[in-house]
Parts: sequence; structure tokens; C-alpha cells
Amino acid sequence: MSSNRDIDALIDMMAKLPGLGPRSARRAVLHMIRKKTLVLHPLTELLQAVALNVRECVNCGNLGSGAVCDICASEKRANGELCVVEDVADLWAMERSGVFRGRYHVLGGTLSALDAVGPEELRIPRLIERVSSEGITEVILALNATVDGQTTAHYIADQLDGHVRLTSLAQGVPIGGELDYLDDGTISAALKARKAV
Amino acid sequence: MSSNRDIDALIDMMAKLPGLGPRSARRAVLHMIRKKTLVLHPLTELLQAVALNVRECVNCGNLGSGAVCDICASEKRANGELCVVEDVADLWAMERSGVFRGRYHVLGGTLSALDAVGPEELRIPRLIERVSSEGITEVILALNATVDGQTTAHYIADQLDGHVRLTSLAQGVPIGGELDYLDDGTISAALKARKAV
Ligand SMILES: [Zn+2]
Ligand SMILES: [Zn+2]
Repeated sequence: MSSNRDIDALIDMMAKLPGLGPRSARRAVLHMIRKKTLVLHPLTELLQAVALNVRECVNCGNLGSGAVCDICASEKRANGELCVVEDVADLWAMERSGVFRGRYHVLGGTLSALDAVGPEELRIPRLIERVSSEGITEVILALNATVDGQTTAHYIADQLDGHVRLTSLAQGVPIGGELDYLDDGTISAALKARKAV
Repeated sequence: MSSNRDIDALIDMMAKLPGLGPRSARRAVLHMIRKKTLVLHPLTELLQAVALNVRECVNCGNLGSGAVCDICASEKRANGELCVVEDVADLWAMERSGVFRGRYHVLGGTLSALDAVGPEELRIPRLIERVSSEGITEVILALNATVDGQTTAHYIADQLDGHVRLTSLAQGVPIGGELDYLDDGTISAALKARKAV
């Protein structure tokens, strides 16, 4: 379409990223080409750095540069609270709210009969291990207010029932709402008003 | 914010691309990290290829891999018609419509007293050269229907008056509309119904 194979392939690949489409991909690629020194080169270097250095934490599923992420490595975050989220975007949303000072467990999705996602695919066995091995006193189920999110929360609550205090985000999370779409204040309010499951 | 410096820098840079914001940048970056082999690595390679191979055509301002772009190099496109556009995105939009078979001249912007953009900054001297040296019989002014676009069209029309047939896109381009936002059918219709300036 641009009559250049590399540009077309780059636009196609950018257009498939979540949140982009063909038009925003074309404009982004033209912008990068116009600003080779200021945008294209630094962006390429950052992608290489991320490809090389970023990995999933073996403990919680968060992203970081070591085998264990900064939050798991920090003794300050070992306050006995463990916040269970669906994915890293939700962990980042929680961190932006700045209210939660414990650790996380990133499931990597939700249980889904339709997509054949069972507990083993979701780091749920590892979650149960962590609750005993890390001296967890409270598990906060910060899953999305979707059907799959709530099914997953109920499953985890059943598994952990009697072993630990279980809470979930309360006030402020709208029905069908996804954490990563909420403003930081809403997340703070929901965390402060969390209730026992 | 993600507690990893490379990820944060990558998100910041992606968020500044046109059409993206912090949220779509975060989702795009997480998607790339999840799909290292399928997305992150090929994307990095394409950015490197584009940085290395893509350059502006010395003749028309289009992008390509040689000193002269494929359209300027093609004898088939030497039909005496020259379409003047503001930027490469507009050239791509014209090419997607598939109707125009001549060559292009990419101005690289519009005249703007406010931003101190004069004819020299816009490849207008080169346009005037091309009209005589390439045996151009018709110049189609396909500039955006904005104040600056139309000011630029009038300036070019004054410069070329008497030397060549001057036309502009007509039917279908809405007032204030930008070419790159229009569907291909609208562009086809506007080109077919072009009128003398
Ligand atoms: Zn971790
Ligand atoms: Zn050219």
C-alpha cells in the first residue's frame, strides 16, 4: 500500500496491537519515520532492552528484570496481604492507586470452561502454596467484575476457605467493569472499603 | 510505575505516538511482552529495517528504499498528471483509492504564517521545476479542505497559473475534512469529479 514492503509490514503489525487500528498504525509509523533520531531509534532500543531483560516473576507472575520481581524481593511488601489480580495490567492499575502495600499474585487470566482454562493454567496451585509459605493473613481477590472473573474468585475462595482471611474489592467497581479502565480514586475507594467474602 | 525502567520508558514513548495514549500504550506493551516471539521480536526487526532502508524520495518526498521512490521510478506513472498532497499519509490515502495513475508531489505540510512555514520549507520550488522538467500537463491540488490547505493551494495555483492545467479535488471532500480520514470511495468520487481551479 505504501509501495514499501517494510513499511507495510510494520503498519500491519502495529495495527494488530490492542488499542490500535490501521489508521492509527499508519500515523504512528509515519511519525516514527519522520522522527528517526528522536523516536524510531530510541523505540527500537527500548524494544530490544525489554525483549532481553524483562521476564515473568517465578513467584507471582509480575514482570521484572530478575527471576523474582521487585515487589516479591522487597521485605517492605511482606505485610501479610496478598492481592490476586487477573493480569499485569491490573497489578499496574493497583500500583498506580498507591494504596496497597502488600504483594500480588497474577493469575494470568480467568477460569473459563469455554476456553478450557483450568486452575493449573492460572498459577492457582502456586497461590495456595504461597498463602502458607509466605505467612499470608489476608487474600484480596481483586478480579474483574465479569462473569469469568467472579467465577474465578469463587473458586479461589473455596480453595482457601478456612486458611486465611478472604476479601474482595467492594465499593466503586461497576458491574462488568474492568480494573484497568477505572480511575485511581475509584480503585483506592474500592480497596479501602473491601469486604469479607 | 511498572517498577521496571525499560517497560516504563517504552510505555512513555509509545504513549506519545499519534493515536495512542497511556492506556493503549500499556496494553500494547503488555501484549508485546506476552508475545515475544510472535510480536516483540518481529516488530523490533521491522523497526530496524525501516530505520535502515526507508528514505524520502529526492524527487517527490514520498517514502521508499531508494534515492527515488517506486512511483517516480515507474515510467507507467509518467502520464502527465501530478497530484500535490500535504503529506505521505495523504499520498497513501490516494493510492488506496486506486484511481489516480500519475505521480505525486508531497509538500511536507502547508504554508503557515503562524508557524513560519514558507514555500522553501514545502518543496514548492521543486514542484515548479518538476512541472516543466517532467512534462506535466495537469497539476491536481489534493490539499486538505482546511484554511492552511486552501491557502497553500491558492499560492501554488498563483505560481503555476498559465503554465499547466490546474485542478482540485471536488465533490465529496467535506469542509474542514482531511483526506486521510475519508473512505476510499469518497476520494475516488472527488478525484473523478475534479474541477479546474
Ligand atoms: Zn513477583
Ligand atoms: Zn518520488
